[in-house]
Amino acid sequence: MATDEAPIRIALLGAGTVGSQTARLLVEQKEALEKRVGHGIELVGVATLDPVDDPWIDQSIVTDNAAQLVTRADIVIELIGGIEPARTFVLSAIEHGASVVTANKALLAKHGSEIYRAAADKGVDVYFEASVGGAIPIICPLRNSLVGDKINRIMGIVNGTTNYILDEMTTKNLDFDSVLKDAQEKGFAEADPTADIDGFDAASKAAIMACLAFNRDVRIDDVYVEGIRSITAEDIAAAGELNRVIKLLAVVEQDETGISAGVYPVMIPEEHQLAKVGGSFNAVFVEGEASDDLMFYGRGAGGAPTASAVVGDAITAARHRAKGVTGSSIPLFSDAPIKNAADGEDVYFMRMRVKDQVGVLAKVSQIFADSNVSIKAVQQHEKEESSKTHDLWILTHATTGRTIRDISDKLEKSDFIDSVLSTMRVFGE
Amino acid sequence: MATDEAPIRIALLGAGTVGSQTARLLVEQKEALEKRVGHGIELVGVATLDPVDDPWIDQSIVTDNAAQLVTRADIVIELIGGIEPARTFVLSAIEHGASVVTANKALLAKHGSEIYRAAADKGVDVYFEASVGGAIPIICPLRNSLVGDKINRIMGIVNGTTNYILDEMTTKNLDFDSVLKDAQEKGFAEADPTADIDGFDAASKAAIMACLAFNRDVRIDDVYVEGIRSITAEDIAAAGELNRVIKLLAVVEQDETGISAGVYPVMIPEEHQLAKVGGSFNAVFVEGEASDDLMFYGRGAGGAPTASAVVGDAITAARHRAKGVTGSSIPLFSDAPIKNAADGEDVYFMRMRVKDQVGVLAKVSQIFADSNVSIKAVQQHEKEESSKTHDLWILTHATTGRTIRDISDKLEKSDFIDSVLSTMRVFGE
Repeated sequence: MATDEAPIRIALLGAGTVGSQTARLLVEQKEALEKRVGHGIELVGVATLDPVDDPWIDQSIVTDNAAQLVTRADIVIELIGGIEPARTFVLSAIEHGASVVTANKALLAKHGSEIYRAAADKGVDVYFEASVGGAIPIICPLRNSLVGDKINRIMGIVNGTTNYILDEMTTKNLDFDSVLKDAQEKGFAEADPTADIDGFDAASKAAIMACLAFNRDVRIDDVYVEGIRSITAEDIAAAGELNRVIKLLAVVEQDETGISAGVYPVMIPEEHQLAKVGGSFNAVFVEGEASDDLMFYGRGAGGAPTASAVVGDAITAARHRAKGVTGSSIPLFSDAPIKNAADGEDVYFMRMRVKDQVGVLAKVSQIFADSNVSIKAVQQHEKEESSKTHDLWILTHATTGRTIRDISDKLEKSDFIDSVLSTMRVFGE
Repeated sequence: MATDEAPIRIALLGAGTVGSQTARLLVEQKEALEKRVGHGIELVGVATLDPVDDPWIDQSIVTDNAAQLVTRADIVIELIGGIEPARTFVLSAIEHGASVVTANKALLAKHGSEIYRAAADKGVDVYFEASVGGAIPIICPLRNSLVGDKINRIMGIVNGTTNYILDEMTTKNLDFDSVLKDAQEKGFAEADPTADIDGFDAASKAAIMACLAFNRDVRIDDVYVEGIRSITAEDIAAAGELNRVIKLLAVVEQDETGISAGVYPVMIPEEHQLAKVGGSFNAVFVEGEASDDLMFYGRGAGGAPTASAVVGDAITAARHRAKGVTGSSIPLFSDAPIKNAADGEDVYFMRMRVKDQVGVLAKVSQIFADSNVSIKAVQQHEKEESSKTHDLWILTHATTGRTIRDISDKLEKSDFIDSVLSTMRVFGE
């Protein structure tokens, strides 16, 4: 773009899959991007400790000195991941007057409020569309379009690995271990899958969404987490019989008593929009008081999709730079109490193996009654003739996760129960 | 909110369903909205020619003088609809230095570029989230999150009335006229349903989306339009046999030869995300080069949902006012050719009633061959014994709408065809 003014300087920290695709978009689409900004842009440096062999990254701008690079850029794109040194580089970039674009969910879920405040104090932008739902624009709507409304609840399928695993288990009738192994072989799951399957990745995203939706400093430590490791083919089949599918959801909600944030598997109705989100796709379902139900769907990961969100943020920040203004800060003014999601009330499904004795249902029912939990439905599932046990499915009325755990403990200790096989929240009852 | 500074003055033009809900949100959520803005806000006037009896609108601020009201506001919310006097009020508001929020798709589809340019010249904001897809944040992502990507195609279910009608026809096996009548009685369709069922409402939205996606001044006159009036229960049934559903789509696309925008019914695969959008819900499906498939789903109409988008825009504009800055303008720098969507190549389904003669299929095939159109599949559907005709279904390879119309004309004129019953585009072949 013909301009006498110096171009807006963009620095990239990290040159992995997303970094490489970010560099590609910035170089390949440079002309269109500059027209959209109304000003020249230039990728002035790429900081990485690894050797770079990338057609889109000019070797002459590669540096191993990120600390120095952030001091000579107008916009710093942080794609290193993890807490440190990412936090130090981001805060230093802000301190030196640069706007920041980051995809770093772990950093924001732990130090978001510190970073948002530093940026507001310095009058620079912080954008992080790629931190939740990859390519899906969910952060932008939460920061802008939806601020006129009161958000009651957000439910997100925000981890592609676990959605892929549950979808394969559901559609191909496979068990957890074989699907995980297959996903690892295909590169859809990490060699160490803990962050995904135990729900910690989704928990970071829950914290970030809760901050924006409720204007409250919510951090990952505030998020209750259950993963999908213990889900069996029998659970999936049971959900199917109840016309439901199992999804790992990040759920953040607010009512007059406070805010809660949790990640846990849920049986949701087959006809719910989230039930139709297959494979490794992500989706975020928002329940607003005025806007009613909204859903945002797309690719939650992958180099190019994530880079599209990163570059979109960079262009928005560049437009502000070109005009000498900054966008909205992130106001965290709420002091609403943060509740433990395990104290939230839900309908539960419980599957247990009971001994073939007369009166076992009465005994099981009594344990629920002792905890003041009403039973909504019971199904007996006979095993083969020779077996001395059969399976019992119970659907409760709304109660807390803590109460369900107490009941489960009591049942496990009783002499008429072989084992409690699973407990799971049920939405839409 | 305690502040020494004067509050940001908001004026409302129009006090219908959306206007009333907009006033409600501005009054009911005032405290939360002011915290999000970081500044006081005040609804200073509501202009309407009708008497107002609304618990959320203070009679003392009601005026019939919109022309005067727009000169004493910082933000003008235009909910009058139609071209004039809305255009005059919007341009006057901008001229007097106010930012504008509008839900007026007809105005933007005809005079968008004039309004965007006036706002950019004056340094004020124009926001219009509610103009497409009601509560669904689609404008905000197109203006921000997706600007780092190259958008190849957008397909939108952007008219709730027609989606409701097609969904009822599909799920309840009803014909068009009875569903339309029922929808009118229930208030889901207007007494004069032309704008909806003939596709003009969706065409306005197509023009607005094309502008943002392709940075090109695209207006409603550039949009090719076909409605759903001629769709029969037999067409719906035929789609079902092909594992497809019929949706009225607004389609805007760009390739190296130019841009095209059209509204027309399409048979889409049952497993496509858009096929799962039922009732009067809207959804916009975006195919980006880097971001891949994205979908935005929600309520496309209704007082409260639409008002949530309007107030979200007003708050974004108010934040900018509080900081003394403006957001992004809408750069329409592209001069890519605008093509007629009827010249785009698609697979077509054609259903015709042919006479029971030997060799009729050969004759029909010859007419397709004469126009250089290959036939992909043919199905004969026998009628009851006594009938002297039977139905023929033909699926073509990709060809243009013009060619299909030519073929249809030739078939109609031939002596071996009773009539061509329907032709329709097929996606996903």
